[in-house]
Amino acid sequence: MMKNVAIILSGCGVFDGAEIFESVITLLALDARGAKYQCFAPDMQQHHVINHLTGEVMEGESRNVLVEAARIARGDIKELKELNVDDYDALILPGGFGAAKNLSDFAIKGADCTIHPDVEAICKAFAEKRKPAGYLCIAPAMLARIYGSKVKMTIGNDAETAEAVEAMGAIHIECAVTDVVEDRDCKLITTPAYMLAKNIGEAATGINKLVDKVLEMA
Amino acid sequence: MMKNVAIILSGCGVFDGAEIFESVITLLALDARGAKYQCFAPDMQQHHVINHLTGEVMEGESRNVLVEAARIARGDIKELKELNVDDYDALILPGGFGAAKNLSDFAIKGADCTIHPDVEAICKAFAEKRKPAGYLCIAPAMLARIYGSKVKMTIGNDAETAEAVEAMGAIHIECAVTDVVEDRDCKLITTPAYMLAKNIGEAATGINKLVDKVLEMA
Repeated sequence: MMKNVAIILSGCGVFDGAEIFESVITLLALDARGAKYQCFAPDMQQHHVINHLTGEVMEGESRNVLVEAARIARGDIKELKELNVDDYDALILPGGFGAAKNLSDFAIKGADCTIHPDVEAICKAFAEKRKPAGYLCIAPAMLARIYGSKVKMTIGNDAETAEAVEAMGAIHIECAVTDVVEDRDCKLITTPAYMLAKNIGEAATGINKLVDKVLEMA
Repeated sequence: MMKNVAIILSGCGVFDGAEIFESVITLLALDARGAKYQCFAPDMQQHHVINHLTGEVMEGESRNVLVEAARIARGDIKELKELNVDDYDALILPGGFGAAKNLSDFAIKGADCTIHPDVEAICKAFAEKRKPAGYLCIAPAMLARIYGSKVKMTIGNDAETAEAVEAMGAIHIECAVTDVVEDRDCKLITTPAYMLAKNIGEAATGINKLVDKVLEMA
């Protein structure tokens, strides 16, 4: 039977949404390994809109996370509330600032962050049903809130970010961009991706390993 | 020496810009084969903005092709006027409706289409200097205007689209999604990608072949 993986996207673009390379590499890796996927995103306004050419906030602009994430998914995407955990073998969250600005407010509040309630409920449901999950880039910053303290994870090697996730109770493990950190008890895989990647190939190496491990456990 | 490939993007999202999967798979394939790339896009307003969740035009919204294409390129993109053909070994244009709505107006005018003058000038310069080029999906619809009549190309197997490109003087050759059409005289490779692809893996197979052939000739 084909394994079926739920993907949660957080918009479309590294600075205010889902990181596009990480998202596409994840979907390509799943397809190449004979797995199915379905993309989801919450129906909510983005924290803000960043002009990706200049890096500046586009004042007065407002975009919806689900509508923008639909760009990555070519329209084949569902609202997050429609995600029934029983229909999926595993969960993967690509990174990008959308994970830390839309799905959670980690980019603004650090260790005091909260997670969007629908995202938290779905991620916790995968954890509680002991279904494997993979979190990329900055998305692992949410993990202490989902799996509780002592969860083993990586966001690469950024000292300030590592300190914030440890303040939330996670055990941060430094990791190369081409590698993954595994928490076997939690059936959880994390990889630094564009927290560290200097090019698309480095990101792909780590993401391919993450997808391999997640599917092995599914 | 690493081969250096110029990529022209047409926005960010299949229905009004560059097709995201095709764009990312192209960049990943170039990196995996040891080539460098630089993304470019014209600084112009998009023909329109499509809500990729509903497929409808977002009335009153206006987005810039270069600013939106910067989402795919993680901000590492240049305005098309900065593209000096002498600095690059080859050119690749991913598809998506942006190629037929922004870079040209083929989606609106069919065989009577014109190409954005900066795009036409750059694409013709690669042709005149006999540097190899790859066009994906609907982007080959522009080729009769660039290479003149009798250019051999594919847009897959859609009869109406094939008729329009033949009316412009191109020789359309039916092609499977997993394959490419080569015009050796023009050093030109085309592949149907999401004109035909039913999944990301099918698109990747054809795009990987296109990238192989383009780099072989570069």
